[in-house]
Amino acid sequence: MEKGVIIGWHHLPFVKEDARSLEEMIVAAGTQALDHAGVGPEEIDAVYLGHFNAGFSTQDFPASLALGIDPALRFKPATRVENACATGSAAVHQGLQAIAAGKARHVLVIGAEQMSRVPPKEVGANLLKASYVAEEGSIPGGFAGVFGRIAELYFQRYGDQTEALAAIAAKNHKNGVANPLAQMRKDLGRDFCRAVSEKNPLVAGPLKRTDCSPVSDGAAALVLAAGDVAATRAIAFRAAVQVNDYLPMSKRDILAFDGCRLAWRKALAEAGAALSDLSLTETHDCFTIAELIEYEAMGLVPAGQGARAILDGVTEMGGKLPVNPSGGLKAKGHPIGATGVSMHVLAAMQLDGTAGDFQVKDAELAGIFNMGGSAVANYVSILERVK
Amino acid sequence: MEKGVIIGWHHLPFVKEDARSLEEMIVAAGTQALDHAGVGPEEIDAVYLGHFNAGFSTQDFPASLALGIDPALRFKPATRVENACATGSAAVHQGLQAIAAGKARHVLVIGAEQMSRVPPKEVGANLLKASYVAEEGSIPGGFAGVFGRIAELYFQRYGDQTEALAAIAAKNHKNGVANPLAQMRKDLGRDFCRAVSEKNPLVAGPLKRTDCSPVSDGAAALVLAAGDVAATRAIAFRAAVQVNDYLPMSKRDILAFDGCRLAWRKALAEAGAALSDLSLTETHDCFTIAELIEYEAMGLVPAGQGARAILDGVTEMGGKLPVNPSGGLKAKGHPIGATGVSMHVLAAMQLDGTAGDFQVKDAELAGIFNMGGSAVANYVSILERVK
Repeated sequence: MEKGVIIGWHHLPFVKEDARSLEEMIVAAGTQALDHAGVGPEEIDAVYLGHFNAGFSTQDFPASLALGIDPALRFKPATRVENACATGSAAVHQGLQAIAAGKARHVLVIGAEQMSRVPPKEVGANLLKASYVAEEGSIPGGFAGVFGRIAELYFQRYGDQTEALAAIAAKNHKNGVANPLAQMRKDLGRDFCRAVSEKNPLVAGPLKRTDCSPVSDGAAALVLAAGDVAATRAIAFRAAVQVNDYLPMSKRDILAFDGCRLAWRKALAEAGAALSDLSLTETHDCFTIAELIEYEAMGLVPAGQGARAILDGVTEMGGKLPVNPSGGLKAKGHPIGATGVSMHVLAAMQLDGTAGDFQVKDAELAGIFNMGGSAVANYVSILERVK
Repeated sequence: MEKGVIIGWHHLPFVKEDARSLEEMIVAAGTQALDHAGVGPEEIDAVYLGHFNAGFSTQDFPASLALGIDPALRFKPATRVENACATGSAAVHQGLQAIAAGKARHVLVIGAEQMSRVPPKEVGANLLKASYVAEEGSIPGGFAGVFGRIAELYFQRYGDQTEALAAIAAKNHKNGVANPLAQMRKDLGRDFCRAVSEKNPLVAGPLKRTDCSPVSDGAAALVLAAGDVAATRAIAFRAAVQVNDYLPMSKRDILAFDGCRLAWRKALAEAGAALSDLSLTETHDCFTIAELIEYEAMGLVPAGQGARAILDGVTEMGGKLPVNPSGGLKAKGHPIGATGVSMHVLAAMQLDGTAGDFQVKDAELAGIFNMGGSAVANYVSILERVK
């Protein structure tokens, strides 16, 4: 099976409000990714667009907007995929599949979301459409409420995690300072993240504002190619695994993140690698409690001991496994459909040695975990530079 | 490349209002498709859900709902795809790609939409989100307005088509009487369809109510398998082609249906077949004017002469190429995300010889054209029974 490689990318700066339209963001990211890959639009055989929408945009049916990049893209197959907050990775993995199927030699993958055009109260309502609405649709506080409940349950089972969550938030904010693509570039410090204050109020359960990723506008794009394509750079997929779990939280042990755990296990097996082989990981810190539980699910620490990974410095820059050197969703922003593509771009930059101030030294193997809902859609990619 | 075959299916009756929830419809269609295929849920390697939504359902992120079919589906990859009214075919074609990529031996494909749960005026607004909103979003009459404008332009260029459109509507309604899965089962007759009346008012431009497919609730599902899988029946894809055109109508000759034309040309070449080899076609008659132009784009008649195909009886049951023996979207209903899957199921039934009262005699090769927007997303499949 042809696994496909990443040969170029582009990442718009994620911001609170992008003055461009969603269409302009899609076109800008895609155009520059082609340019970076050194691939002409006529060479593209398929386009995948990751876009959540769910009320954020009045324009549905967005896949063909990407054809606006260049007249040579007219008549190419273009498909939108969606798996909530893992929508971007869904697009990447479907693109890989087009190559593996022999249907495409070059694929353009774009993830985009514009969340700023709806009133703030609609943001929470739109995001809550990614919960199991029949049971979870009235949880107060939007999706923060879902993870607030998860945090409460975690605290009940394993004890108070205030320090660990503050440390995760502080780490990601500190990392984000070095990432020019990040929406928030301020080293808030652990003290600020720990304390409830006027500027850092409680949002849902024990989660404070600093425990939540911000609402963002953003787009990112990458070009996938068959492994034998001539390219100036090539980041290979040692593994690409998707695992979906039940949508209703009531049908699962919600603290186990079983889908995440299985996706990591399968991906490491597919890659023939151990977690300790990874140089870095970009993981889905939509909320700090998610990153904490993901430490456990990826196998870094046993269940209930996620705090150790951060408090012992393992996941800090310079630690044994830097997690979210980009600043993560926390600092970078989380424009839903763009996030998974962004993770792949930022990991590719690390392996390419072009991550600038947030570069992990000698990065050779990068893990990515992108999650839709509360560990419902789970995507793990393991990337390695081959050229 | 492994092309994949259809080995089982199920089609809920399309209705104006299904009392079940969207989730229940997805589970019902999927469960019965597995049963029909004789495949256990544990054998399924991937799930694709075709669902448009765009405001029709408060539940977004629906892919994992399909895992509710059986606990053995837990942890399988499940992905939603969308390409407006061609969403169902997008799911079918992505499923084929999973097989071609060697990622799956069995794929469950489900298309579902529930349009009845929103107030009537929201129906039009939701559908119009599949137009190019920046330019076309204020066209009066929802999506009927888009095709009303296309009909007006066609009439201006090629003359009045009232008779031909009435004949298409009458044909499809007559065919639908024989299809127990169709929403409307009444032989309205050409006279009723031709005349503007209280029961058949003008809706948009020259289009009357009988020129428009009805708003529906529905779901359909099928099981795809690798060609070497043991199965009691197997309907093969001689071709599966996707062509996307620009979203804005202003960038195209909207009467040319260029994307449809190209998709048919490529598909026939891939199948190594001529149009005259087809025993039947299920085509996208969201509006009668669409079916008329599709006659031209598929190559049945020259541009501007679509009327001949219907008025000469070519596309009637018993004609040279029966088009929409199922009754088409016109009689069958058009639950957006389900339609493309429905077309594949109904064509498969024809080839399987199990289409009952709407059976085309000795059907050997079936064509399918499913369209998103105004010839923006264009999918052609050519099916043949191999077992």
